[in-house]
Amino acid sequence: MPELRKDAVTGRWVIISTERRKRPSDFRLERPTVIGEQFCPFCTGREQMTPPEVLAFRHNGSGPNSAGWDLRVVPNKFPALQVEGGLDRQGEGLFDKMNGVGAHEVIIETPRHDESLATMPAAAIEKVLWAFRERVLDLKQDRRFRSILVFKNHGAAAGASVDHSYSQLIALPIIPRQVRDEVEGARQHFAQKERCVYCDIIRQEQEVRTRVISENADFVALSPYAPRFAFETWLLPKRHGASFEDAPRHEYESLARMVKETLQRINRALLAPPFNLIVHSAPFQDGLADVYHWHVEIMPTLTKVAGFEWGTGFYINPVSPEEAAKCLREAQL
Amino acid sequence: MPELRKDAVTGRWVIISTERRKRPSDFRLERPTVIGEQFCPFCTGREQMTPPEVLAFRHNGSGPNSAGWDLRVVPNKFPALQVEGGLDRQGEGLFDKMNGVGAHEVIIETPRHDESLATMPAAAIEKVLWAFRERVLDLKQDRRFRSILVFKNHGAAAGASVDHSYSQLIALPIIPRQVRDEVEGARQHFAQKERCVYCDIIRQEQEVRTRVISENADFVALSPYAPRFAFETWLLPKRHGASFEDAPRHEYESLARMVKETLQRINRALLAPPFNLIVHSAPFQDGLADVYHWHVEIMPTLTKVAGFEWGTGFYINPVSPEEAAKCLREAQL
Repeated sequence: MPELRKDAVTGRWVIISTERRKRPSDFRLERPTVIGEQFCPFCTGREQMTPPEVLAFRHNGSGPNSAGWDLRVVPNKFPALQVEGGLDRQGEGLFDKMNGVGAHEVIIETPRHDESLATMPAAAIEKVLWAFRERVLDLKQDRRFRSILVFKNHGAAAGASVDHSYSQLIALPIIPRQVRDEVEGARQHFAQKERCVYCDIIRQEQEVRTRVISENADFVALSPYAPRFAFETWLLPKRHGASFEDAPRHEYESLARMVKETLQRINRALLAPPFNLIVHSAPFQDGLADVYHWHVEIMPTLTKVAGFEWGTGFYINPVSPEEAAKCLREAQL
Repeated sequence: MPELRKDAVTGRWVIISTERRKRPSDFRLERPTVIGEQFCPFCTGREQMTPPEVLAFRHNGSGPNSAGWDLRVVPNKFPALQVEGGLDRQGEGLFDKMNGVGAHEVIIETPRHDESLATMPAAAIEKVLWAFRERVLDLKQDRRFRSILVFKNHGAAAGASVDHSYSQLIALPIIPRQVRDEVEGARQHFAQKERCVYCDIIRQEQEVRTRVISENADFVALSPYAPRFAFETWLLPKRHGASFEDAPRHEYESLARMVKETLQRINRALLAPPFNLIVHSAPFQDGLADVYHWHVEIMPTLTKVAGFEWGTGFYINPVSPEEAAKCLREAQL
């Protein structure tokens, strides 16, 4: 059983998940080895290589775990957390731990090995967003979970282990520190001004324009004022809403188009870099409806994080967001 | 001039330092290219390739910036921060920024290209620690600075850009979030118990022993209870003290031996992995003498950090600290 352990000084939780590998000595420097098409477990016809699906968008007449699907969601075969069991919170002297209970699922975004979010039709990306929503709404009913993270690692350098387009979802029994920091920051702003900080950011950025990359009816894509990473990009819904899963239908359609367009800009400007895409949505807590504002963050893997960043949580970014926004704004689509 | 910018939501500061590269489009995926011996600016006889030294341990009769040294400290040729000027704190609507004022120095640990902290004599490592101390004491007098980070990136995958053994020092006009989190955690523990949390950790770990790697007169090396990274290792002084630079002389000698021994264990057990070494020391604030406890953290670069970690600040560690400690304890020296 994986364990969640809390650092006695900072209160930071970590997952100790030893079942994902064999012996400690297996841990040499990880070479980025990515599973390619030949052995791809996510391609059509290989449905038996994954655990049984928990959700699929299928063509009429196709049976579960067989060919004939547009999208599948399956439990992660090497989950960081285990879905069965109670939390069993315990102390160990000074320290705190609990069972590593949680859900870890894989969203296989397309049956085709050669597609990606940048090349798929916007309608197919919209389906991916609907799958995120359905899975979050389902897992949210499990009272053990307090937050759900939906994210995507694209490319080996960004942590992808398979070369086929997929995302992941992790449901957690705690609220991770960084999610809490964001929520607390937004809460403080609201307490002071009775306004959402993200709504304020959108308003200011739309006025100043130097960090806006593009807009459509429902979304604005921008380079944030204080980005940790070069070309970090946020996609913010213009309408205030705390939770991704509660967005109105038309926002998924707009977001799908915005994701595709933004990735195309990034691919054009930066020669198709690896990237991480993360859905930031309110954890399952009361009183966040007015305070938090869900959004998507995309971070190309361009620079390396080293001792300084690990030691301080303080990032050195060699590209200003104004330069990044200009470069992405001018990228030909 | 580099800029320090603050995220309006989380309060996280970042350094926007665009002078380290030419055009935004230069930012493709960084290949780990490390400068080898042939062009090494840190070798004896190449003193003109670095900015003039700010400190050196020299043989009798050798002049500054010439051969005949055991250790040199020079300003970083590509500094993330600039040492001249005032902070000039400003608002930009919602946002806050200040000039990227700070010191960024390089400690060249040895004149020899083929040495490392694992192979150098302990006496030479002690000199490195004394150089850290001297530079911190000097920079601390500059009232613009509120914290200093001393760290080392070893190996390309850990962020080293030169293949010669060196460390870095960054003096900052702010206290980075992670340093603040640690200090705040320690402060809360002290407020509750009137004891240092690190002293409590040392006591408990010495009793339990499962996470202790080794001990000498002044230091204990252990795998922390909730490590972010596989084989993360902390070197803690047994005597309470908030600041690295205020340690008594004999602790540098003990620490030098402990650093060497620990790196030898890591090299043996993990085939000489890249790593980051970070000195955690109290920021320049009153009231921390009883609260904070300086120490060294070593983090081998074994696994990759990806979307999940970036999105949550929540780490998945595939090796338990008990396994890691056992493996390092049993490594033959």
